[in-house]
Amino acid sequence: MDPLAKLVAIEEIKRLKARYFRCVDTKDWVGLATVFTPDAIFDLRAVNSVPNPLTGAVEPPISQSDADVYRGRYAVLAMIHAAVETLVTVHHGHTPEIEITSETTAAGVWAMEDVIRNAPDAPPLSIDGYGHYHETYERLDGVWAIKTTRITRLYVRRG
Amino acid sequence: MDPLAKLVAIEEIKRLKARYFRCVDTKDWVGLATVFTPDAIFDLRAVNSVPNPLTGAVEPPISQSDADVYRGRYAVLAMIHAAVETLVTVHHGHTPEIEITSETTAAGVWAMEDVIRNAPDAPPLSIDGYGHYHETYERLDGVWAIKTTRITRLYVRRG
Amino acid sequence: MDPLAKLVAIEEIKRLKARYFRCVDTKDWVGLATVFTPDAIFDLRAVNSVPNPLTGAVEPPISQSDADVYRGRYAVLAMIHAAVETLVTVHHGHTPEIEITSETTAAGVWAMEDVIRNAPDAPPLSIDGYGHYHETYERLDGVWAIKTTRITRLYVRRG
Repeated sequence: MDPLAKLVAIEEIKRLKARYFRCVDTKDWVGLATVFTPDAIFDLRAVNSVPNPLTGAVEPPISQSDADVYRGRYAVLAMIHAAVETLVTVHHGHTPEIEITSETTAAGVWAMEDVIRNAPDAPPLSIDGYGHYHETYERLDGVWAIKTTRITRLYVRRG
Repeated sequence: MDPLAKLVAIEEIKRLKARYFRCVDTKDWVGLATVFTPDAIFDLRAVNSVPNPLTGAVEPPISQSDADVYRGRYAVLAMIHAAVETLVTVHHGHTPEIEITSETTAAGVWAMEDVIRNAPDAPPLSIDGYGHYHETYERLDGVWAIKTTRITRLYVRRG
Repeated sequence: MDPLAKLVAIEEIKRLKARYFRCVDTKDWVGLATVFTPDAIFDLRAVNSVPNPLTGAVEPPISQSDADVYRGRYAVLAMIHAAVETLVTVHHGHTPEIEITSETTAAGVWAMEDVIRNAPDAPPLSIDGYGHYHETYERLDGVWAIKTTRITRLYVRRG
């Protein structure tokens, strides 16, 4: 691909991920459905595992359970819906590293922060998480979508 | 517009908004004056209203008062000056979705976080806010500026 | 430079800084070594100094010590290694303002947030910092690297 086409694709993928964050946090389920490929995979096996810089270990160990890997657009959407529907959530993505690997495929890493709170009047819940999304993208009918995504963590604060 | 001109405009608008954030937080009033069009509008009616995911309601209800809509560059600048002059502030913008609608007009949504503190030695004040800016931009004499901006909230923590 | 080459350079510099953040926080020392020019300078003289919006003063005053300026890639890497090796760290960069000044030189400002914690089981340490990176970049053998970087602060919360 020529440099201009690559830059256009990178900007489209940045907007795609921006839409993902905005739709999750505004609970825009119709908008969110457009973000993923039909065969999308969302891998949450490492979502609770934080590296300890003193020991080098990841604690708790990364899940080996396939139940923590959501396969197919509607399984992914149902997981997100169940996870955030009744909560106040803020998901922010930072400093994307997007690699266009062909006219229809790409990969990317995003730094992220998420802020999770219970709704007003519900029992207090407070989780602030930091880490990265590791993703691949596919261009279907001219539109980029998220094909695979996997979360790793740097730090989680529970209040 | 051709794809290259669109990408140039998108990058210029990202830098415009970056300058807005930097000038607000470093109290650079001269720099901030260059950010807005002469007829700029800053709509703060929803700045304190947070959606409750359990009830679907926005609480408190969005203001209906026209006094919360600042009209004209100097009214906007005076409002920002009065709001932040004596405070420590950090405003961060994330994952812009910029749409170039013509050679001289554009629209955009930014995720945002703001951190507001009182100055050292002043009575403690702590507000951490999260939400979105909904904006339009205009290109005047070849330079992009913010024409309208409206804040919506996801979550506010007062300490 | 033509507009397309400038946009390509801007995107490369954004990815460069993204790699800096990711390598610092994942303790990827091999990756981090590729981020700086051989003559890189990291200026930490202002890293603890916060402006007071009521008095206009910066408190404590900015260091005048040359010991707070790290000169040369390996001095910079050693400083970062010593500073973060045993800590949980999250460094996020926002809204870059990148200026390409020639085919091989550029300058940039990044808004930033850093989250510093002690490792699990170590005595609690909590520092949340906000400010800006002020940087220059150089293109060596076709690859952009950080040539100079200087941190200024808006706010630091110690817990």
